[in-house]
Amino acid sequence: MTTPEARNPPLRAVVLLSGGVDSATTLAIARAAGFAPHALTFRYGQRHAAEVEAARRVARALGAADHVVLDVDLRRFGGSALTADIPVPKDRAATEIGQGIPVTYVPARNTIFLAFALGWAEVLGSQDVFIGANVLDYSGYPDCRPEYLAAFERMADLATKAGVEGRQRLTIHAPLLKLTKREIVERGAALGVDYALTLSCYDPSPAGEACGRCDACQLRLKGFAQAGLADPARYQVAVRGA
Amino acid sequence: MTTPEARNPPLRAVVLLSGGVDSATTLAIARAAGFAPHALTFRYGQRHAAEVEAARRVARALGAADHVVLDVDLRRFGGSALTADIPVPKDRAATEIGQGIPVTYVPARNTIFLAFALGWAEVLGSQDVFIGANVLDYSGYPDCRPEYLAAFERMADLATKAGVEGRQRLTIHAPLLKLTKREIVERGAALGVDYALTLSCYDPSPAGEACGRCDACQLRLKGFAQAGLADPARYQVAVRGA
Repeated sequence: MTTPEARNPPLRAVVLLSGGVDSATTLAIARAAGFAPHALTFRYGQRHAAEVEAARRVARALGAADHVVLDVDLRRFGGSALTADIPVPKDRAATEIGQGIPVTYVPARNTIFLAFALGWAEVLGSQDVFIGANVLDYSGYPDCRPEYLAAFERMADLATKAGVEGRQRLTIHAPLLKLTKREIVERGAALGVDYALTLSCYDPSPAGEACGRCDACQLRLKGFAQAGLADPARYQVAVRGA
Repeated sequence: MTTPEARNPPLRAVVLLSGGVDSATTLAIARAAGFAPHALTFRYGQRHAAEVEAARRVARALGAADHVVLDVDLRRFGGSALTADIPVPKDRAATEIGQGIPVTYVPARNTIFLAFALGWAEVLGSQDVFIGANVLDYSGYPDCRPEYLAAFERMADLATKAGVEGRQRLTIHAPLLKLTKREIVERGAALGVDYALTLSCYDPSPAGEACGRCDACQLRLKGFAQAGLADPARYQVAVRGA
């Protein structure tokens, strides 16, 4: 990773921020590395739109230099439990999570998000994009894998004016890629992330309380439990670890 | 190019449709090749939003199987004469157009558009995306070049559930890539495209009349003139060729 700590003003980076544990931790890592983080959040028609409010809280608390929330209506395409009238799976066994690609996969979501990040980075004169992608304690999405991220970088350098003119050579930073959820939580806690501000649940109540039963809640609870920390999220039901 | 003519029902393709000459011709080519074209248009904050109405007319006239118009507000990033308060260049010499990348370049625009097309294609069970990219009579945008499109294809096959499961191997069709504007107009005319429905201008009047002076107008007028056809577009001023 580039370490731009000595730079003044600091180098700018675009940080994809959903409002969950992983992206909040990623934002804290980008800031600790000396970047001026420009947070980018999408209201894409997800059923868990409360995460957009979580993203606003996180961006403010962690000192993002700027925060843009973009509306892109992925419900127009459907095809996912997060954007269409398909139930979110609950209470899946730990051995099931990450095996195969679940119905919460949103077609091309990270490609769409990274494409916008690339555009904003070019306007900002930035060469660095951060994403909280992770391949260990994750839901099995194809667009979180290192080979995908590397292919996106190669494409990006051919896509932009800054790339063609040699002023941009995009680096996609995925600092959580090979961390367990436990390690992610520990890392964020050490950086002072207040996880009470975050929301991970795919299917929260209208008041923003987590279900405690979807894959995202289960992975989160497991991470906090293994780290020996209490999960400060608000749950609709009593859950072990919270 | 795949020739799915014998298929019943026809194979679906996503066609990026801006409402200009190139994308209208591309839609006609996709249809003539036997695809069921699903047209995709973006209202992205462009100053020439009248082109969205042109896209609706074109999609209807050329028999698109479906047409989705998505709102994505690229003004939030700025950085282009098409999305920010930067004047559109007028009356540039023919020798200047295509030399260097002009201020009408919109950062990562084709990457953003293709990312959405990829997502919709996956939901549709389609492996084919059409784009009217062109490297001869064009404005010099990096994200129109064949090496860029090839890199996007490679990234796409790693991005999606359908790709990972072997059900999708995305082909980006750019049938105009190496045609001159003259050849594009001739091809479309032969396929019955009514170019009176299209709008190419970057800076049209509120009534949708073309300026006749921006790069897009100049390239269009040159194409019609060289093809020996009258350009049926409505111009604000008397222009040669119209």
